[in-house]
Parts: sequence; C-alpha cells; structure tokens
Amino acid sequence: MQKIRSGTIAALLLGGFILPLPLAAAPSPAAAIRTTALQDNVAWDFVEGLTTEVGPRPAGTPQEARARDWAVAKLKSLRFANVRAQPFTMPVWLRGRDEAHILSPFPQQLVLAALGNSGSTPAKGIEGEVVYFPTLADLEAAPAGSLKGKIAFVSHAMTATQDGSSYGYFGATRRQGPSIASRKGAAAILIRSIGTDHHRQPHSGVQMWAEGAKPIPAAALSIPDADQLVRIMSRGRPVRLHLTLTSKMLKDQPSGNVIAEIPGADPAAGVVLAACHLDSWDQGTGAIDDASGCAIVTAAALHAAKAGPLRRTIRILMAGAEEVGGDGGRAYFAAHGAEPHAMVMESDFGADRVWRVDYKLPAGHEGLASRISAGLAPLGIGRSSALAGGGADIQPLVKAGVPVIDLQQDGTRYFDIHHTPDDTLDKVDREHLQQNVSAWAVALYEIANAPEKLDVK
Amino acid sequence: MQKIRSGTIAALLLGGFILPLPLAAAPSPAAAIRTTALQDNVAWDFVEGLTTEVGPRPAGTPQEARARDWAVAKLKSLRFANVRAQPFTMPVWLRGRDEAHILSPFPQQLVLAALGNSGSTPAKGIEGEVVYFPTLADLEAAPAGSLKGKIAFVSHAMTATQDGSSYGYFGATRRQGPSIASRKGAAAILIRSIGTDHHRQPHSGVQMWAEGAKPIPAAALSIPDADQLVRIMSRGRPVRLHLTLTSKMLKDQPSGNVIAEIPGADPAAGVVLAACHLDSWDQGTGAIDDASGCAIVTAAALHAAKAGPLRRTIRILMAGAEEVGGDGGRAYFAAHGAEPHAMVMESDFGADRVWRVDYKLPAGHEGLASRISAGLAPLGIGRSSALAGGGADIQPLVKAGVPVIDLQQDGTRYFDIHHTPDDTLDKVDREHLQQNVSAWAVALYEIANAPEKLDVK
Repeated sequence: MQKIRSGTIAALLLGGFILPLPLAAAPSPAAAIRTTALQDNVAWDFVEGLTTEVGPRPAGTPQEARARDWAVAKLKSLRFANVRAQPFTMPVWLRGRDEAHILSPFPQQLVLAALGNSGSTPAKGIEGEVVYFPTLADLEAAPAGSLKGKIAFVSHAMTATQDGSSYGYFGATRRQGPSIASRKGAAAILIRSIGTDHHRQPHSGVQMWAEGAKPIPAAALSIPDADQLVRIMSRGRPVRLHLTLTSKMLKDQPSGNVIAEIPGADPAAGVVLAACHLDSWDQGTGAIDDASGCAIVTAAALHAAKAGPLRRTIRILMAGAEEVGGDGGRAYFAAHGAEPHAMVMESDFGADRVWRVDYKLPAGHEGLASRISAGLAPLGIGRSSALAGGGADIQPLVKAGVPVIDLQQDGTRYFDIHHTPDDTLDKVDREHLQQNVSAWAVALYEIANAPEKLDVK
Repeated sequence: MQKIRSGTIAALLLGGFILPLPLAAAPSPAAAIRTTALQDNVAWDFVEGLTTEVGPRPAGTPQEARARDWAVAKLKSLRFANVRAQPFTMPVWLRGRDEAHILSPFPQQLVLAALGNSGSTPAKGIEGEVVYFPTLADLEAAPAGSLKGKIAFVSHAMTATQDGSSYGYFGATRRQGPSIASRKGAAAILIRSIGTDHHRQPHSGVQMWAEGAKPIPAAALSIPDADQLVRIMSRGRPVRLHLTLTSKMLKDQPSGNVIAEIPGADPAAGVVLAACHLDSWDQGTGAIDDASGCAIVTAAALHAAKAGPLRRTIRILMAGAEEVGGDGGRAYFAAHGAEPHAMVMESDFGADRVWRVDYKLPAGHEGLASRISAGLAPLGIGRSSALAGGGADIQPLVKAGVPVIDLQQDGTRYFDIHHTPDDTLDKVDREHLQQNVSAWAVALYEIANAPEKLDVK
C-alpha cells in the first residue's frame, strides 16, 4: 500500500453523526448516506476480488469473459436487479514478445511495450538506425521519405497535473505518432511512455492507424529507458537497434458489457447511468484502471438506495473493451440509447480522492447542482466552472445531449501507473476509495430523487 | 530524477568559504577540500558515463569486460597512476527466460526473476502446486519430504531501515531458502523479493547451494506479485503454477578488477585502499549498485590530493564479480594482501547521503578518529559507537586485521531499487552524490596524511 496522505475525513464526519449529542438534529438522508459510505467495505472487496480472482482483463479475451462472469455473480450477490451481460464481438490485438536492444555503439537491453494495434516484426526482429525527435512536432517536420528504413524515436516528457489535462496534449505522441512515422516511411516507431513516473514500467495504450498509414511496429519505452536512449543519442554516434514486437490480430472475438440496476419508482423519470469499464490493459491487474471505478459506482449505488426507494432507476454499466476504442460504450448506446436517460456519469480515473465537481446540465437545473455541491462540500470537494465531459464509455450519450456530471478525481499520480504492469491493488488507497464512494453516493441519491424533469427524450 | 529531500549543505558551506569576510581565517586544508568537493562534477560524470556507455555489467560477461576497459580509460584520463586491470577467471551463471503463470484457480502471469545460481527448468517449464510459508522459519519447520514435487513459496516482508540492517535478517530467505527447500524435496522455490518497494520489479541476488543441496529453480517474485500470490492462496483452493527459468552456467569466464593509484610520498606508511565494485546485476544499469560507489571513491581521491602531495598512496580498487560472491576482492587479496595496508574503506550502499561514521581502528588511534569526525560533522555526519565492518570486496583485508572506517550511507530507500531493473541513473541524486564525495575526500585526506603508524605489517 502506498499511502498518499493520511486523512481524517471519516473520523470527523462520523464523530458528528454518531455522537449522542442531546440537541443535535437528525442528519438529512444525504448526510447520513455520505457518512455511512465513508465506512464502505463493498468497494474495497470488489477491487480486491476482481484484481485477485481475475487479474488482467484485456478486451475480447477469455480473461475479460471471466471478468464478466465474476461481475455478474458479484452484482447478483449484492442483490442488484436485472443483472446481465450484453455480448458483442470485436477485433482483438494481442501482445507477443516485446524486446529491444541497442546493437551499437553501447550494446544493452531496453524495456518497452508494444502499443495497441502495433504492427508486428518478423519473429527474428528487425534492425534499424534510430532517428531522435524531441517532440511530436519535430517528427511532423521531418521531410517526407527521410525516415525510410529508420526507427523513429519521440521522447516528449509528460508532466503530471491534478486534473489529468496534460494527457490530452502529450498523449498525442502515442495516438498520432505511429501514423505520422508510418507515412514518412519509418520502419518502426518508439515513443517515450506517456507517463510521469521513473520506473522501468512501460505505459501501453491504444493507437489507431490513420487513413492510408500502413501499420508498423510501434512501442513505448519505459521512462528511464527513454532517458537512457536520449543520453546515448547525445554522444553523436549512429545508434542501431534490434527490435522484436510479435503481436497479432484476431477477428470477431467475444466481448461484452455487464449491466445491473436498482429499480426506481418512476420509470418515466429516466435512468441514472453510472458507468465504468471492466476491461484492463494486459500487463497490470487494472486495479486503478478501472476495477476501482466499477467498485465505486457499485458501492455508491447501494448506499444511495439505503434511505428508501429511489424515484429513478440507477443503472450500472460495466463496459467491455473501453481501452481499445470504446466498443462497449457504443454497444450500450446501440441497444439502450433510445431509452430516456436522466443523467450519465462515469468513474474512470483511478482511486484517488474526488476533489472537484463539474456539471453539464440543461438550463434551469441550478437547484440540483446546488444540492449536489452542498452534499459534496463536507468531503472537501469544490465546484468548478468547467463543463463536465464524461468518460469514454458514455460519450455516445453525452453527444446525444444527456446531462452529465463529473466527479473529478485527483490525477496527480494517476499517470505514474496508468497502463503499466504496476497497476496493481497496492496502489489503491482504501480511504480515498471510500471518499469516492461517499461522493458518488451523495450525487446518485440527489439525482435519482431529483423532482426536476431531467430526461432529454 | 527522484529528489529525496532538498538540501542546502553546499550553499551553507560555500557561503562560509568563499565570502570575502575581512576577519575570516583561511580555511584548513581539510575544510577547503570538503567545500570544493561539494561542487564536484567528476562523480556524476562517472556514473552517467558508466551507466550510459556500458549499462548492465554482469560478472564474467563481455559487458563487464567493457566496463573494465571503460574504467581504465576513465582513470587514465583523470591522471591516476598505475592504472591496470587485474584479470581472473570464474564460473558464470546467466539468466535465461524468467516466466511464471498461475494455472488455477485464477490464471494470470506473475513477474519474477531467477536468483543467482538458480537451477534451470526444461525449456517448456515445470508445473507444480504452491505451498505457502509466511516466513523462512515456517519453511524450516516443514516436515522432511513434505515438499516433494511442490513449489515452495516464502513471503516474509522486509522492512526498510536507515542503516540497512534489516537486509541481514530478511535476506536469509534468499541466501538460505533455496537450499532448505531443495533439501526438503521441493521442485522449485519462489520467494518474495528482498526489497521494500511496491513496484513490479523483482529483486535478484545471489544465493549459494549449501553442501548436499541439489540446485532447483529459484526465483524472486516482485513484491506486488508476492502480495497477489498470498491473496490467491488465502482463498483456500489449490494453486497450480507453471514456471520457466532457463538459466545456464559457464565455466572459466574472464573477469577482473581495475586498480589505480595516487602515489604517496612514503611507501612504507602503507596503502589507503578505497574500494567499490564495477560489476552489477544484469537487469538494471547498476547506477546505485555500484557505479555510484566507484564514482565517489574516484572523485574523492582526486579532491583529497588537491591540497598537495599525500604521505600515503591512495589506491582505488574497482572490484569485479562482487555481486556473485566477492571473487574480485579475493583476487585482490591474493595478489596484494601481503602489502602493507594502512586502511581499507568501501563505498557500496547506493548514492544517498552519508549520515554516520563507524570506526575499527587499532588501540591508540583516537586522535585520527577525532580529526576525521570533526571534518565530517559540518556535512551532517555523526559518529557512532558501532564497529566498522567494511564492504564485501575488502572483507579479506578486514579479516586480516587492517583498520577500517565505514562512511554509512542512508539506506532508507536503497532496498526499493537494489538488484532490480529500476537501478538506473535517475535514482541518483546529484547533491547527495556530492555530499558523499566530500565526506570521502575529507576522510581520505586525513588518513593519507595521518602521522600515526597505521599499517599492520
């Protein structure tokens, strides 16, 4: 367990709730939910169970299928209603051997991981001279054809931010770099991992080949290895590298979502959708990405319903295949997008505490936003003026105009771990997880019981 | 770069030294050396160069031979005298593929590294049921024959200590566990890495087969993987594991020491030996273990000699093959043990600051200890009552009765990185490295010029 900071939120709030002060008013239902949820054990048991009993859950693999079975059984045991898997099929990219070593001038191994949809080398690997680009813009500026037969290397260092906003900018090297290098004739591309740590844990992640870009081998070096290669390049001598990435593609593999509900009293009031994703990258156990998200929404829904029947149905969506392009979110929308949705929310940014709430509500719903913000404030959560955007699995609904709220988690250390082998249970702080459950429970309670008309149909 | 703590040692001391205070006395030679050495660049350049231009340096391999060539050239360029390699031969254990996966009840990969001198599995691996022992004592208590065909798993968690003393106790699982498991008939043994981090970086390290213990496959799981296996075992179902460790042994491979000197004016006064080791484990670049040690003693010797000719010769010993049993130290003793040695010291505990000085001096040398302690105090280094013990490469000399001083480095985070792929340049804090150089320079200056008779011959 890595403790980030010790908190006393639970102790403070519990004190206010359970002390038998003679003159204290009974807490409001929302306050009672908030306090009780800070003692939640359901979320921890969920993360511990899924990461231990299933482990890695790559999209479209038998491990992801085991995760669906596990989640269906878990949600049934927690007495959710209408628990079911929603199957779909998809193409699957599978990692093979990921190996690289410098041939000259300073022979040594490098640690790296193929990026999703990477092309494959022959089993015996390829050799090439490395051409170094400090930034993606430098790669873009390379003359056409100048990379023919070469291995492009882009090493733009990402910086950590609390809101994770740097991922958009620096992540472009992973998302677009391979296609750019391919179009310029490169034999392969290596990037510095899109991450903020200093461990030899490469950060994988998906990239899609742009129109007309032929797949080439594409991989991320761990950050110490990218630093090392920059230093080796700095000696000014030609650097030759041997690269073996033996991935493969499979067609039409089974994936699926898992859906469960706590039925509300007024079906016409629209569904409150609380989403997360069940799949993970292949090298870690997906503890922060995104077993924690699924644990949070599951536990929070149970706490939200403890005060009595809810007006609206809370529906849990544990999406499949988020990491490789959001197939699960699209499959959900295709099947359920026409149903009235009052609100969509997603938890998919780790397990660290919620520090901010963002809204995107129809005009005239300031009252709901105020009630939610007031309920979150005792948890140290402030309201921002930023517009909520939602996570990948709910994008189709957000684009269709469904109201959305983001409970923004602290991302300062998220990209130390994201998509690496290091995404394991010990990185989850139990007290932060409980704060997430509490925040989500308050929000779901207020939304599910809101008297306002929210659905967009 | 991971900053451990920011210091202002250099600024404070430099202020006292270079400010043109009209009434300030000229600093003593030792004080001037201490201050100048805090601005040292030689040590950083050494660590950066050796880890970049050679990288990993396993004992008895071509990489270690490149390290010797690199060090000889470096020491000559720094104008050391009598620079030469001292060759010897040795058996070499070479890592092959290290792979493990749980077959049942929860199929998943585990991250591990074979221990030095591990037996090899067939190329297709072996299968076996895991038997869990929380501590080495539990393994020792297992009935004879009870492990036949099984894979023993010992998961005693090491705690971090500033003085590194916990390595002795917890390290016994690595040093003795494999032989104990073998004698009880185990097919293989897995241990929790002897380390204090929470990353999926297994800690390798040597172990020697005890008399009568047949080599079996032996490996260390990363700490998150050991935690995971404990959790899986806790479900109470039989755990079957597939293990592939394809290491091999080679006979009579070339290794060697590198030796260099700053000659003193009085050869009869005995040599001051400053040692480190040039080899490293195979998966990292040996930045903290022990490129930093060699960098520190090299730079410190140069600073110690800046105030003018020394009475005694300072001899640098960069030992080969320390990690696998101390072959270099024994080879040095066989060739040079009969020469008069006034003092031996070794730097082999990372690159973090020196916090304590320990002595083991002949009776009647309190004056020398007092002068050294006074010179170190401005660097935040206190004197202890513990008896100095020296590092592995100087053990034969220590056992022969040569006086020894230990400049104890802060080991709080040393075993986060020790013997892992993560032992890379970014783990070295430049300011801490400079504090080491300064402390060593002060000590070497005082010892080399001490008027006392120190040699034991």
